Amino acid sequence: MSRAPQISVVGAGEGDGELLEAAEEVGRRIAEADAVLVTGGLSGVMEAASRGASEAGGIAIGVIPTSDPADANEHVTHAIATGVGQARNLAVVGSGDAVIAVGGEWGTLSEIALARKLGKPVVALRSWPLRNRAGTDLGIVEAETPERAVLAALASLRTR
Amino acid sequence: MSRAPQISVVGAGEGDGELLEAAEEVGRRIAEADAVLVTGGLSGVMEAASRGASEAGGIAIGVIPTSDPADANEHVTHAIATGVGQARNLAVVGSGDAVIAVGGEWGTLSEIALARKLGKPVVALRSWPLRNRAGTDLGIVEAETPERAVLAALASLRTR
Amino acid sequence: MSRAPQISVVGAGEGDGELLEAAEEVGRRIAEADAVLVTGGLSGVMEAASRGASEAGGIAIGVIPTSDPADANEHVTHAIATGVGQARNLAVVGSGDAVIAVGGEWGTLSEIALARKLGKPVVALRSWPLRNRAGTDLGIVEAETPERAVLAALASLRTR
Amino acid sequence: MSRAPQISVVGAGEGDGELLEAAEEVGRRIAEADAVLVTGGLSGVMEAASRGASEAGGIAIGVIPTSDPADANEHVTHAIATGVGQARNLAVVGSGDAVIAVGGEWGTLSEIALARKLGKPVVALRSWPLRNRAGTDLGIVEAETPERAVLAALASLRTR
Repeated sequence: MSRAPQISVVGAGEGDGELLEAAEEVGRRIAEADAVLVTGGLSGVMEAASRGASEAGGIAIGVIPTSDPADANEHVTHAIATGVGQARNLAVVGSGDAVIAVGGEWGTLSEIALARKLGKPVVALRSWPLRNRAGTDLGIVEAETPERAVLAALASLRTR
Repeated sequence: MSRAPQISVVGAGEGDGELLEAAEEVGRRIAEADAVLVTGGLSGVMEAASRGASEAGGIAIGVIPTSDPADANEHVTHAIATGVGQARNLAVVGSGDAVIAVGGEWGTLSEIALARKLGKPVVALRSWPLRNRAGTDLGIVEAETPERAVLAALASLRTR
Repeated sequence: MSRAPQISVVGAGEGDGELLEAAEEVGRRIAEADAVLVTGGLSGVMEAASRGASEAGGIAIGVIPTSDPADANEHVTHAIATGVGQARNLAVVGSGDAVIAVGGEWGTLSEIALARKLGKPVVALRSWPLRNRAGTDLGIVEAETPERAVLAALASLRTR
Repeated sequence: MSRAPQISVVGAGEGDGELLEAAEEVGRRIAEADAVLVTGGLSGVMEAASRGASEAGGIAIGVIPTSDPADANEHVTHAIATGVGQARNLAVVGSGDAVIAVGGEWGTLSEIALARKLGKPVVALRSWPLRNRAGTDLGIVEAETPERAVLAALASLRTR
């Protein structure tokens, strides 16, 4: 058996309407590409993306900080209740064959950094405008739209 | 949307043929009950249960210690790559609405203990014969067959 | 520089007076042997052992589940605030060159199991009376008194 | 008993000579202020800071990814062997009453982000030049020298 590709979407637990619409579209397009969505399973960007994926008939896995699957948002298809608090961020990005960051606060930045530490492809949509002191290429693809973000994530899977 | 019930199966990374057959039957019966199987995603009991579930058309989620989904066994439908080593045992049992222990070495004992610490129903099949110093009821159901183990786990879900 | 030996003491967050006295004596004797005490940093056995060590002039490290060092009990010399919830049990036993279990509920059992999984020497004082189905030697030393428990832990360090 | 303040120093496992000298001075000045140093316990910035602290007679706690205390660098006074891989980054910053980032690659960025997520004061020395899309104040103090970095960290403790 070969697993379906898994794409992790990371983003804050709250956000304005436009950002959440973008997250929902990202989730929907991931499902339409027959990929599995992985998120942190709570509110905001995580919930919007999960709704997009599950309403399109796809699978939305929520990897949550607590030990109670019932803490996942209602659009999560399967809940992984890690019990390790914010360390679940590592599990969210580790589970993605590629990672899409939508908007983002500190938790999202930690996920982008952990994803790159693990060598995962990262696509950023309205997220942190990162640069390092040396000004070298950080290997993060900046996407302008949800559609392009998902296409970039899917493209990164093919070249692995 | 309401999530399908999730049953975690814990057990060692190796085992004799009889134990692995039991694990495979447990996985199959979980899938036939339309529940989702969660395991530690590696070899032995974890792999046998995953094979049983996926060959019956069910879903087998593997929650693995590393950050690479490719480390999951080939019968895993979706891989959660936690990156937290043996601490993933907490995520395996936390994700179960009930937990079935099949055989077991030290890792399995840690999972039984963590599951009970979290208040999860635990069913034991050829696993550790536990008692405490006070001789009080430990709240673990001992099952004689894979069929009875899965029935006991399903029954525990109804009474929650 | 060579680190001082580290001995982890695991036990429940509550306990009767006799058990807590035993835990305090264990902590004191660890400090008197110039070893560093590591515990889970909260109440009960963890606090009693920390008090015993710190009042004897020793070092008591508390490895706690939250991200706030202030959550450690007041007898902890240094607080490691892991933020990983019950997964900090793995850090407590991993940090010990030997592990002493004093009394114990489910959390303690998970720590004994994780310690043995990691191959750490384990000494049990009024703790779980473990046996497996095969009846083989589990490699756990049963001690009758706090003094003998600490001596057994120290002896295990010399033979490593 | 009141614990000594704990300052976490985060930084990469490798670095040029100038950066490692800065890290060593940071460690030394933390020890001279009677604060306890916490690092990730491995090489590079972590080792240099630990050397600085321990050679000044201070305490250097190393919070490492594996379950074997012997994996810590030789300048670590006490080793916490978490066993949770990169999730130990959360434990490193959680244990600090303040956090100093020295240089930094992806792992360091994840630690800065987790520290801010937890609301910990962060001082940056030759580290990531962070800004967010909104251009709001990120609450990170940029220091020009090791001396000023430690002074800023100590100042943040007094205002908590």
